[in-house]
Amino acid sequence: MGLMTTRLQEAADGLAALAPGRVLTDDAALAAYSHDEAEWAPFVPPLAVVLARSTEEVAAVVRWAAERGVRVVPRGAGTGLSGGANSIQNSIVVSLELMQQVFEVNVDERYARTQPGVINNALRDHVAAFGLWYPPDPASSAISTIGGNAATNAGGICCVKYGVTRDYVLGMTVVLASGEIVSLGRATAKGVTGYDLTGLLVGSEGTLGIITEVTVKLLPLAGRDERAVIGYFPSLEAAGVAVAAISRAGIVPAALELIDQACLRAVDDWQQLGLPGNVDTLLLAKIDERGAAGDELADRVAAIFETAGGTDVERATDPEEISRLFLARRLAYPALERLGPVLTEDICVPRSAVPEMLHRIQQTAALQNVTIANIAHAGDGNLHPLIIAPVGDEAAKARAKVAFDRIVEDCLALGGTVTGEHGVGLLKLDGARRELGGAVIRMHRSIKDALDPQGTLNPGKAF
Amino acid sequence: MGLMTTRLQEAADGLAALAPGRVLTDDAALAAYSHDEAEWAPFVPPLAVVLARSTEEVAAVVRWAAERGVRVVPRGAGTGLSGGANSIQNSIVVSLELMQQVFEVNVDERYARTQPGVINNALRDHVAAFGLWYPPDPASSAISTIGGNAATNAGGICCVKYGVTRDYVLGMTVVLASGEIVSLGRATAKGVTGYDLTGLLVGSEGTLGIITEVTVKLLPLAGRDERAVIGYFPSLEAAGVAVAAISRAGIVPAALELIDQACLRAVDDWQQLGLPGNVDTLLLAKIDERGAAGDELADRVAAIFETAGGTDVERATDPEEISRLFLARRLAYPALERLGPVLTEDICVPRSAVPEMLHRIQQTAALQNVTIANIAHAGDGNLHPLIIAPVGDEAAKARAKVAFDRIVEDCLALGGTVTGEHGVGLLKLDGARRELGGAVIRMHRSIKDALDPQGTLNPGKAF
Repeated sequence: MGLMTTRLQEAADGLAALAPGRVLTDDAALAAYSHDEAEWAPFVPPLAVVLARSTEEVAAVVRWAAERGVRVVPRGAGTGLSGGANSIQNSIVVSLELMQQVFEVNVDERYARTQPGVINNALRDHVAAFGLWYPPDPASSAISTIGGNAATNAGGICCVKYGVTRDYVLGMTVVLASGEIVSLGRATAKGVTGYDLTGLLVGSEGTLGIITEVTVKLLPLAGRDERAVIGYFPSLEAAGVAVAAISRAGIVPAALELIDQACLRAVDDWQQLGLPGNVDTLLLAKIDERGAAGDELADRVAAIFETAGGTDVERATDPEEISRLFLARRLAYPALERLGPVLTEDICVPRSAVPEMLHRIQQTAALQNVTIANIAHAGDGNLHPLIIAPVGDEAAKARAKVAFDRIVEDCLALGGTVTGEHGVGLLKLDGARRELGGAVIRMHRSIKDALDPQGTLNPGKAF
Repeated sequence: MGLMTTRLQEAADGLAALAPGRVLTDDAALAAYSHDEAEWAPFVPPLAVVLARSTEEVAAVVRWAAERGVRVVPRGAGTGLSGGANSIQNSIVVSLELMQQVFEVNVDERYARTQPGVINNALRDHVAAFGLWYPPDPASSAISTIGGNAATNAGGICCVKYGVTRDYVLGMTVVLASGEIVSLGRATAKGVTGYDLTGLLVGSEGTLGIITEVTVKLLPLAGRDERAVIGYFPSLEAAGVAVAAISRAGIVPAALELIDQACLRAVDDWQQLGLPGNVDTLLLAKIDERGAAGDELADRVAAIFETAGGTDVERATDPEEISRLFLARRLAYPALERLGPVLTEDICVPRSAVPEMLHRIQQTAALQNVTIANIAHAGDGNLHPLIIAPVGDEAAKARAKVAFDRIVEDCLALGGTVTGEHGVGLLKLDGARRELGGAVIRMHRSIKDALDPQGTLNPGKAF
C-alpha cells in the first residue's frame, strides 16, 4: 500500500471505534465533505469524515487526531462562502450535522441551549412555540446550522437593528485542541468573570476549538409590528444615497436590503414571484416598531426613498406580502448560482460610503468585463457583489479574480472591512492580512499557538 | 540609599524624560494612586505615577517598564470596586485621566472616537449635541472614564434593554505589553475579519493591553418616550417575585432597579429628596417605547407590580421626576459609604432566582450579624448587596468578609456568576477560579502568557 492508502486505512480503523458506523471513507463522501460553497477556494480531500453525535465523541476524535498529527476540520452544514470548512492536507472532517437536539428553552431567562447541528430556521421555529425569538437570520437560515453560525459569527438581514450572532451567544461547550472539554460563558443576563472567551470563539472559524453546544439569548417574539417599505431606484448609486440618508436621519430599520436588476431577474425567472423586471435597483426596508410610532417611521423612510429618486414607493403590511418580498432577497444567491459559478464578495463599508462603493463596483465590472450582480445588507453597508463567470471560460474566471481583488482594495481604501459576515476562511486571507497589519496578525498567531500549539484545529484559516 | 529608594529614584529619572512634568513620586500621590474604591483589597504603593497624555507616551512608558522588569498598572478614574486598579509590588501606575479629548463624532455612521480619560457622562453630553446617544450608564457615570468602562466591560442601569459596554465598543487603539501600538476592530457596522480581539480586550482589566483610544457605537438620541413605574413592596422577596414575573411575561424594560429601605433612608438623610422612608423595597421601572405601545407596556408592568404585592403603584412621565427617582438610585452607593466602609457585592443570578437569592442574602445578614443593604439591576438579576461594617470594628469586618464569601457561594449554587459588572479585580479572584474551573483558567493563563509573556501588564488581576 502507498503511504496515503495506509494513512486512510489507519484513520478508518482508528476512528471507527470512536464513532461506530459514522466514519465515512468512500470517495464520494470524501469529495462531498471536502469543501463548502465557496467558489475557487482550494481543498484537499480529507482522510475520513466523522459524523459526530456528542461532545465526548468530538473530544475523543480530536485526541485521536492530535496524537497522530492529523488535522481536524470542523464542519456544520458546509454552507460557508469563504472556504472555512474546506479540508486540507492530512486532515479529517468532523461534521456536527447529526447533533440536532435542542436541550432546553428557558422562558424565564430567555435562552436556548442547543446542539450545534440544529438548522437556524429550525431553532427559530422551535423557540417560537415558547413565545421567543432568535433574531440572527443569515440568508442561509434554511440550510445553515447554529454551530456554523456561531463559528463564523454569521450576520443576516435583521443585523442592522438586532445585531449579529455574537450578540446572542451567551455560552458554549467547546472541545479544545487538547481534547479537553470546557464550558464557556454563562446563562445569566450579565457577567464579567474573566476574559470573554465565548466572544473569542465566536467567529474563530474552528481554529481555536470545536463548538459542541451553544446557549443563545432570545428575545420575546411579541411586541413588533412589521411593515415593509419598497422603492425602485434608477441606479445603484441613487439607492445608495437613500441608504446613507436613512442612517443620517437616525432611523434604525429592522432590515434595509438592496437588490439589483440582475438579481431580481434571476429570482423571477426561477420562481415566478411576479417581481418587476424593468427596474434598476430595489430597496426593501422593514420597520417593526409598534403602532403609530412605527407608521411614522415608515412614512419617513418612504419620504427619504422619494427624495433620493425612488419611484413607486409602496408600503406592505400584509405579512404574506412582506414574506414574499424578503423571500426574493433570500433567493437571490441561489438564483444567480443557476446561471454559473458565483464568486461572492462580502465587504462592509461605512454607510456613507455605500454610494461610492457601489459606483466603484460598477467601474470594476466594466473594466474587467465581468457581470457583477449586487445584493446588500445596505443598512449595514454590507455589500455582496456577486461576480459571475460563465462555466468553462478560463479567461473570464481570471478577470473575475482580478475584480474580486479590486473590490477588496476599494473597500479598504474607503475605510471598510474585507468581510462583513462570511468570514475570512481561505478566500479573504490576503485581504485580512492587509486589513489587520503585521502586529495584529502576530497577536492572532500567538493566541492560536497558545490554545492550539500543534496546529490541530483548522490550521491556515481565519487569519 | 536603600534598594527601594534607588528604584524610586531610577523610576523618577527615567520616566520624567518620557512624560515631562507628569511623573508623580511624592508620598501623597503614591498613596492616592495606589488603590481604587474597593474596600479591603490589598495594594502596595507604586514606584511612580505617570499621568500620560498620548498613546505614544503610554507606549514609551510600557517599553521603559518592560525593559526593567517593572510592572504597569493602568488606571482610569480609579472608581473601580474590585481592586483592578490597585498597584502592586514593583509597579508604576499609568493614569489615563488627562487623555480627555473626543476626536470625532460621526453622525452618518453613529460612532464616536475618543481618548480613554473622557468621563462617561461627558461623552454622553458631547454626543447628545449631535443627536446621538451612548447608552452604557454605570452608576458611576458622573465619575468613571470611558477607558475604564471598556477595560472592565462596565454595566449599568439601562443594560437590561440596551446591553453593556462590550456591545458598544467597535474598535480601539491599544498599547501591548511589548510597547507596540495596535489598532483593533473597525468603524463599520459589521465585520468578521479575524478574531474578536476588541471584545477580548474589553473586560480584560488592563492585563492584555492598555486602551488608549476607543471607538464606540452610538444610537439615535430621539425615538424614545420615557415613563417610570414605581411600586413599593412589603419585602425584598415580593419585589423579587415581580422582577421574575416581568421577565417571564416577555417584557424588556429600559431599566428595572431595586432599592431597599436601608438605601432609601441613607439617600434621603443625605440629599432630602423627599423619598418615602417607611417602605421596605422600591422597584423602579423605565419603559421607553414610543406612544400607545409604551403606555400599554407600562400598564402591564404596573399590573404585575400589584399582583406581586406592590402598593402605591404610580407612573411618572415628567422627565424631572424620572430623573429624581433614578438619581436616588445612583446616589445609593455614595450615601451608604457615608455610614462606614461598604463592601460591595456584585453577583448576577438567573432572573427567576432573584427572589431566592435575596432571601439567602437576608439569611446571611442575620447569621453573620452584619447590615446588608441592597441595590440591584434587578431586571438583569444583577444584585449589589452592600455589606456595611462600622469603622474600627475588626470583628464586624471579619463577619462581613464571611458574609461576602457566603453570598458568592449562594450565587454559584443558584447558577449565577460571581461578578455581573464590577469585574474580578482582586476581590473576586477566588470566586472566578471556582466559577471558571481549572481548564478555563488555564486558557486564560495561556492567552495572558501569549500576549504578555513577561507579565508586565497588571499581573495577578482578572482571573
